[in-house]
Amino acid sequence: MRILGIDPGYATIGFGLIEADRGQVHMGTYGAITTPAGLPLSRRLYQISCDMESLIGQLKPDAIAVEELFFNTNLTTGIAVAHGRGVILCTAEHCGIPLYEYTPSQVKLAVTGYGKAEKRQVMDMAKRLLKLKAIPRPDDAADALALAICHARSFTSRLPQASAVKETV
Amino acid sequence: MRILGIDPGYATIGFGLIEADRGQVHMGTYGAITTPAGLPLSRRLYQISCDMESLIGQLKPDAIAVEELFFNTNLTTGIAVAHGRGVILCTAEHCGIPLYEYTPSQVKLAVTGYGKAEKRQVMDMAKRLLKLKAIPRPDDAADALALAICHARSFTSRLPQASAVKETV
Repeated sequence: MRILGIDPGYATIGFGLIEADRGQVHMGTYGAITTPAGLPLSRRLYQISCDMESLIGQLKPDAIAVEELFFNTNLTTGIAVAHGRGVILCTAEHCGIPLYEYTPSQVKLAVTGYGKAEKRQVMDMAKRLLKLKAIPRPDDAADALALAICHARSFTSRLPQASAVKETV
Repeated sequence: MRILGIDPGYATIGFGLIEADRGQVHMGTYGAITTPAGLPLSRRLYQISCDMESLIGQLKPDAIAVEELFFNTNLTTGIAVAHGRGVILCTAEHCGIPLYEYTPSQVKLAVTGYGKAEKRQVMDMAKRLLKLKAIPRPDDAADALALAICHARSFTSRLPQASAVKETV
């Protein structure tokens, strides 16, 4: 099963593809979609939509795992990230790829076995599981690979957190 | 000039089309795009994208005016509205229609002459300006018509608030 993890955003959208096979995960590819800061938000969103569609067409994932959105201190950034995430969900739906969403603590638990692990521990474990020489850059791509691993492990072991995106409100 | 006002959302998206001609506004049409509550958010967003594209194709606006997003008390609803707004901006961009955004107080000021007017006063004035027998329902459609009037008045008089959507963060 080819799993595409997506770390949502509007300036940098991390992606990571892995192959999951009988409990094992294998590295596919990773990277980031970026949009220029000088463009109007609407144009950046449209570019995300085009790039996501092209990425899905190239990578042909069987499932997409997207991080759930939590607002922390910066509400303004959070609103723009939610705009970007909306476009990402819409594009995945348009391409007919099943979507799953995970909270950061679900990702931490699935990757390291500890729901309150540090970000660095998650990245280190993702590197080990995928037999990489270094932690992928940018961080958004490493986060996306961790999301994909989370889905592979949750889906394989049928943990309750592996649920398709439901209506959130 | 055909102006399409859009009151963004994910459950109900109000729209209102007016024709603006030498300082006068004339009623076009209005209504709402709605999405079923039982559907996953991603499917609702994709439906919004399809319906918006179809609406723009039918109404052929020269400009789209969208309300700026402010979070009030309900953060969860606000996040979902931002997802919907992202899809709306993306679709307008995809269709190549110039986008403008206005804050609620800019709309109140342009429609009633008072930036802190009550919602009801804005609706009453929109009804009078468009020579309607009653305030349009749902409220989202009335809000969308007020947005369109705001753009017509701002654009005609070249007020500083009539600016294309810029990068918000």
